[in-house]
Amino acid sequence: HLKTMEESPGGPSQKKVVAVVGGGLVGALNACFFAKRGFDVELFETREDIRQAKIVRGRSINLALSHRGRQALKHVGMEEKIVSQGIPMHARMIHSLNGKQSPIPYGKKGQYILSVDRANLNKELLTAAETYPNTKLNFDRKLQDWSAETGLMTFVRSDGSEEQVEADLIVGCDGAFSAIRKQFLRRSRFNYSQTYIPHGYMELTMPPINGEFAMKPNYLHIWPRNTFMMIALPNLDKTFTCTLFMPFEEFEKITTGDEVIEFFQKYFPDAIPLIGVDALKRDYFRLPAQAMVSVKCSPYHIGSKCVLMGDAAHAVVPFYGQGMNAGFEDCIVFDEIMEQFNEDFTQYELQTMRAHVNSKWFLFRKHIDNLLHFLMPKTIIPLYTMVTFTRTRYHEAVARWHWQDRVINRGLLFSATGALLGGSFLLIKNPPDINKLLVPAEKMWSRLVALRTS
Amino acid sequence: HLKTMEESPGGPSQKKVVAVVGGGLVGALNACFFAKRGFDVELFETREDIRQAKIVRGRSINLALSHRGRQALKHVGMEEKIVSQGIPMHARMIHSLNGKQSPIPYGKKGQYILSVDRANLNKELLTAAETYPNTKLNFDRKLQDWSAETGLMTFVRSDGSEEQVEADLIVGCDGAFSAIRKQFLRRSRFNYSQTYIPHGYMELTMPPINGEFAMKPNYLHIWPRNTFMMIALPNLDKTFTCTLFMPFEEFEKITTGDEVIEFFQKYFPDAIPLIGVDALKRDYFRLPAQAMVSVKCSPYHIGSKCVLMGDAAHAVVPFYGQGMNAGFEDCIVFDEIMEQFNEDFTQYELQTMRAHVNSKWFLFRKHIDNLLHFLMPKTIIPLYTMVTFTRTRYHEAVARWHWQDRVINRGLLFSATGALLGGSFLLIKNPPDINKLLVPAEKMWSRLVALRTS
Repeated sequence: HLKTMEESPGGPSQKKVVAVVGGGLVGALNACFFAKRGFDVELFETREDIRQAKIVRGRSINLALSHRGRQALKHVGMEEKIVSQGIPMHARMIHSLNGKQSPIPYGKKGQYILSVDRANLNKELLTAAETYPNTKLNFDRKLQDWSAETGLMTFVRSDGSEEQVEADLIVGCDGAFSAIRKQFLRRSRFNYSQTYIPHGYMELTMPPINGEFAMKPNYLHIWPRNTFMMIALPNLDKTFTCTLFMPFEEFEKITTGDEVIEFFQKYFPDAIPLIGVDALKRDYFRLPAQAMVSVKCSPYHIGSKCVLMGDAAHAVVPFYGQGMNAGFEDCIVFDEIMEQFNEDFTQYELQTMRAHVNSKWFLFRKHIDNLLHFLMPKTIIPLYTMVTFTRTRYHEAVARWHWQDRVINRGLLFSATGALLGGSFLLIKNPPDINKLLVPAEKMWSRLVALRTS
Repeated sequence: HLKTMEESPGGPSQKKVVAVVGGGLVGALNACFFAKRGFDVELFETREDIRQAKIVRGRSINLALSHRGRQALKHVGMEEKIVSQGIPMHARMIHSLNGKQSPIPYGKKGQYILSVDRANLNKELLTAAETYPNTKLNFDRKLQDWSAETGLMTFVRSDGSEEQVEADLIVGCDGAFSAIRKQFLRRSRFNYSQTYIPHGYMELTMPPINGEFAMKPNYLHIWPRNTFMMIALPNLDKTFTCTLFMPFEEFEKITTGDEVIEFFQKYFPDAIPLIGVDALKRDYFRLPAQAMVSVKCSPYHIGSKCVLMGDAAHAVVPFYGQGMNAGFEDCIVFDEIMEQFNEDFTQYELQTMRAHVNSKWFLFRKHIDNLLHFLMPKTIIPLYTMVTFTRTRYHEAVARWHWQDRVINRGLLFSATGALLGGSFLLIKNPPDINKLLVPAEKMWSRLVALRTS
C-alpha cells in the first residue's frame, strides 16, 4: 500500500498530489481534509476568488446546516466558527392562509438546524484551506481536459493561457453540472441520470423592520400551499431570504407586477407587507425562476485516479436540506476510508463498489426527491430526525424507519405514497390545522391497508 | 406555416434542407422518408460507406423485423424486398437442458417475425435513399460541433479537413451514444438517463451442416437458463448467429478454452456439436462481451431545429426485439406529424411535448427493460402480440394489456413482478415443461392476491 505522509521519508517530491476540482463548499472543505492528511493539495476553481469578487453569482443565498455537515466541519476545526455565524432554527413555522403561525419543532427539544450564509461559509472554508502550507488555491482555472489514465489535467485561464497539472488523485467537487463527470459519461457501463422536477425556485428578500427581523428569527418559515410553497430562512443582517417553489408554468402565468400582488394576495397575504409591495413587483422579474435537478450516477470513481463528491456525484432537490450536508459527509466518509486503508486509493474503489451493490441510497432518494414530503412534517419526522440529527447512513435511516417494513416490504410503496400525497393535499388545501398534520401516519396507513384488503 | 414542397414555387434554393446525422438503419430509412417528401436531404455518417467497406464492424449481426418496422419500410416501398431477404420465424423454439426442443408460436397462426441481416438491410436502405435525386449521402463525416440556434454543423473528415453545412432541420439518428444528443445534455431541463444492465452479450456462429441449417430454420431458438440465456437467429447463408446473454461476472469467470466447453456442457450441451468444439474455444475469446445500455430522455427535440430518433432518443435492451422496430416507427410518426401540420416543424414540438406529458412509454419500458420477461413467453403474449404484430402505440399496448388494471392500478406492480419473476425462475430451472409455462398468468396472479390479502 501507499505510505501515509507520516511514514514517508519527507521531501515535497514524495508527497502525493491531490487535485480538488471545484472551489465551492464541498471542494473547499475537501481541500482542508486532504491538507490535514499531509497531501499536496491543489484546488482549481473556474471563477475568480469569491473573497475578492464584487458580485457573487450562483446558487441559493442561505442553507440549512445540520448534524452531518457540522461533524465534517468539526473534523477540520471549523464547527464552532461556522455555528457562531449561523442562526439556529428550532422549529418550522407554518404560515396558514389566514396569517396564523404554528410551530412544529425539529426532533427532540434542543435539536435545531442552522441557517448559514452560503457565500460566507464558502469564504471561510477557502481561508481555512489556505492556512495549510501544503495547499494552493488556483482561481480562474477552467478545466478543459483531463486523463483518467495519467491524471494529467489542462486548465484554461480567462486570458487564454493554458496550464497543465498532473495529480495522483483528482477529486471532482464541481457540482451538479460537473465538468469532471463528462469524462465518466464517455466510459462504458457508467450509469447516469439527470432529472429536472417541474418546479422552479425564486428568491425574494424580506428586509428588517425598524432594524429587527420582520418575523420570528429562530424558525424555518413555511407557507405550504398545495403544489407549491414558500419558505424563509433568517440571515445575520436581519433579513429573511424567501424562496418560492412553484411549477414553471405557474411562474410563467404571472407577467405583470399587479399579477404578482394578486398572486401573493391569494396565497401569501401575510408576506406582502413584510416583503413590500414595490419590492415584490420589482424582484419577481429580476431573474427567471431557476431549475432544480436531481443527479444520480454510479460508480462514483474511475479506478483509483478520480472520485466524484458532493453534487457532482449526487445532486438532490433542496426540500430535505441535505445537499450540502451530504456533500460534507462525503469528505468524512472518504477520510475514514483513507484512514482504514492507509491512504491506498485503490481500496476506495472496492469500498464504493461494495457499498453500491447493496445501497439503499437510491431508495432513500425516492423519498426525498419530492417536494411534498417536505409538506408532511409529522409523517416524516422519524426519518427526518435520523437524517438531520445523526450520521446514521442514509440507507440505514430508511431501513430503520419503521414504515419501511410496512410500506416497502409489502410492495405497496407507490400506492401508499400516492394515497398519502393525496392526503397531504387535502390537509394543506385548507388552512393547516396542526392537529390534523399530527395525525399519526400509522393510522392513515392502517386505514389504507384496511381499504385495500377489504 | 411552412409550405409543403408541392406548394412551393420550385427551384432548389427554395427547398428546406434536412440533415440526417447517422447512416445506420434509422438514419438511412429516415433519409428515404424526407426525400420522398421533397426535402433536400443530406445524410452524414462518421464511418465509410459500408457498401464499400471490407469489414463491417459494429452491432449485432441479425435482427428481428416485426410489424412496426415493416410498416415503415412499406411506406418507402421497401417492405417486399427486405422481407424477401429475411427468414420467417413462426415460433420460439425452447431448448431444454436434455436437448428437447419445444416450439411456442408467436401470436396467432400465420403471424411471424423475420430474421434479417443488419448489414444487408443497412446497405439496401442507403441504396434506396440514393435513388432520390434530392438526397446526398456523405460518408467519413464526423460531427464536431453544431448549433441548435442556427442549424450550422461542422464535420471533420479523416484527412482532417472540415466541412460546414447549414440545415433547416437536424435529425439525430446517431445511435445510443449520439453525438447530437451531447448538445441536449448541456441545456437546462433536459432529462436524461443511461443505464447499463449487468448482462453482456457475445455472438457465436453456428455453421451449416452438409450445406443445410444445423437446426430448424424458421424459429427463434432460445436456451433459457436461469439468469442467462442463449438465442439463435437464422441467416440466409444457412448459418445461425447465436447470442449468449450473461452477467459480465459470469463471462469473466471463463478464461480458458476448456472452461468454455465445460460451461457449454453444463448449460447448452446440445449446442456444442452444432457450433463445434474448436470454434467455441476460439470464438469465445475473439471479442470481449459487449455491454447493453438503455437510454431515456425528454424532450426529444430542441425547438423546431433538431429532433432525436431511434436509439439516440430511446435505446432499449434487445430482449423484446423492439430497438430497430421502434426506431423505424419513429420515421412514420414524424412523417404523420409533418403530413398533419403541413411540414411545419414547430408543430412537432407541441406534439411531442403533449405526448410526453401523459406518456406511458416509460411505464412500458419498465416491462421490457428486463431480460426475464423474455423468458416468460406465455405471460406476456397479449402484450407481445400488440407490440410485435400491430402498430398500437406502445403505451396503449400496455394500457390495453388486461394485467394493467390488476397490477398497476392496485399499486402492486413491483411485488407482482417480483413474485412472477420468482415463478419464472422456478419454471426455467427445471427443463421447461411447456404446459407449466402455459399456466395462465391470471391464475398465478389470483393466488398471489389471495395470499397478500389473507
